[in-house]
Amino acid sequence: MAPPPIRILGLDPGLQHTGWGLVEHDGFRLRFLADGVVSTAPGEELARRLLVLHRGLAEVIAQWTPDEAAVEHTYVARNPESALKLGQARGVVLLAPALAGLVVREYGAMEVKRAVVGTGHAAKEQVQAMVRQLLPGVTFKRADAADALAIAICHAHHRSTRNAYSAAVARARA
Amino acid sequence: MAPPPIRILGLDPGLQHTGWGLVEHDGFRLRFLADGVVSTAPGEELARRLLVLHRGLAEVIAQWTPDEAAVEHTYVARNPESALKLGQARGVVLLAPALAGLVVREYGAMEVKRAVVGTGHAAKEQVQAMVRQLLPGVTFKRADAADALAIAICHAHHRSTRNAYSAAVARARA
Repeated sequence: MAPPPIRILGLDPGLQHTGWGLVEHDGFRLRFLADGVVSTAPGEELARRLLVLHRGLAEVIAQWTPDEAAVEHTYVARNPESALKLGQARGVVLLAPALAGLVVREYGAMEVKRAVVGTGHAAKEQVQAMVRQLLPGVTFKRADAADALAIAICHAHHRSTRNAYSAAVARARA
Repeated sequence: MAPPPIRILGLDPGLQHTGWGLVEHDGFRLRFLADGVVSTAPGEELARRLLVLHRGLAEVIAQWTPDEAAVEHTYVARNPESALKLGQARGVVLLAPALAGLVVREYGAMEVKRAVVGTGHAAKEQVQAMVRQLLPGVTFKRADAADALAIAICHAHHRSTRNAYSAAVARARA
């Protein structure tokens, strides 16, 4: 018997644009539910922008009641200042699902690409093409939303692997 | 007539230890109210640590009902990875008072030193000595709390300057 479907919220953090994508996963099949972007105005005070970001995500979580969340883990290559900026958004992005009691997992960019395309060195376009193929009817609100959906797919993939492993262990022990 | 006293919450963000300090300010005098540190366990998942940090700050805000908040603005000099880490804590630290409807101001480290000691190049020990002098009865729970109190004092100082300026403008216009 297939396990009950769960809803996975993928999140791609950014201070100006945080992408989000929701998929349903029953252990085998993936289904696209929704995607979008929470944006904040560059001219505003930082605390105000973080508040807008938090409220936007809290709204998405309240509306779609996801069961688990996945956030891209950034291996920063740029300068400290942009890392600090991204970090501030990322802290708020990780907090929103945690506050709602969700499991929050982190995946590196290469892990996401490997799960979606099959190789950790796939181009952005390849990832988007595979997301389209895996999620019929998907509407990319923005590139950030496409990335968020890829992260959600990656989490679904890891859950399946874990579940299959647990099932195999259970069978072996029976 | 002196304006009604307000409570200022100073915050010194850090993922492992976030210092907080509360002072009361009536436009002229400063009074120490409380200080402390919210700590998170290094071994735990990041989302969980940010949740602990958020809850700790939300509790302080609920208990002490500050009117305004001030957070140290970090001009990062270190590597991108530590900047990202600090940023994540900083995002959550800025969000907590914003969620409670407080004004949240940011001050650079040099601004804080200038307000407390009189020079932007003061040593940490000088800052702490001045905080002790300005806030009789202060108890530094940790060095992080001392920094948080210095930030609160800096905000009080800036408010006074703004208020004195506004008062002078009002008098000139009368």
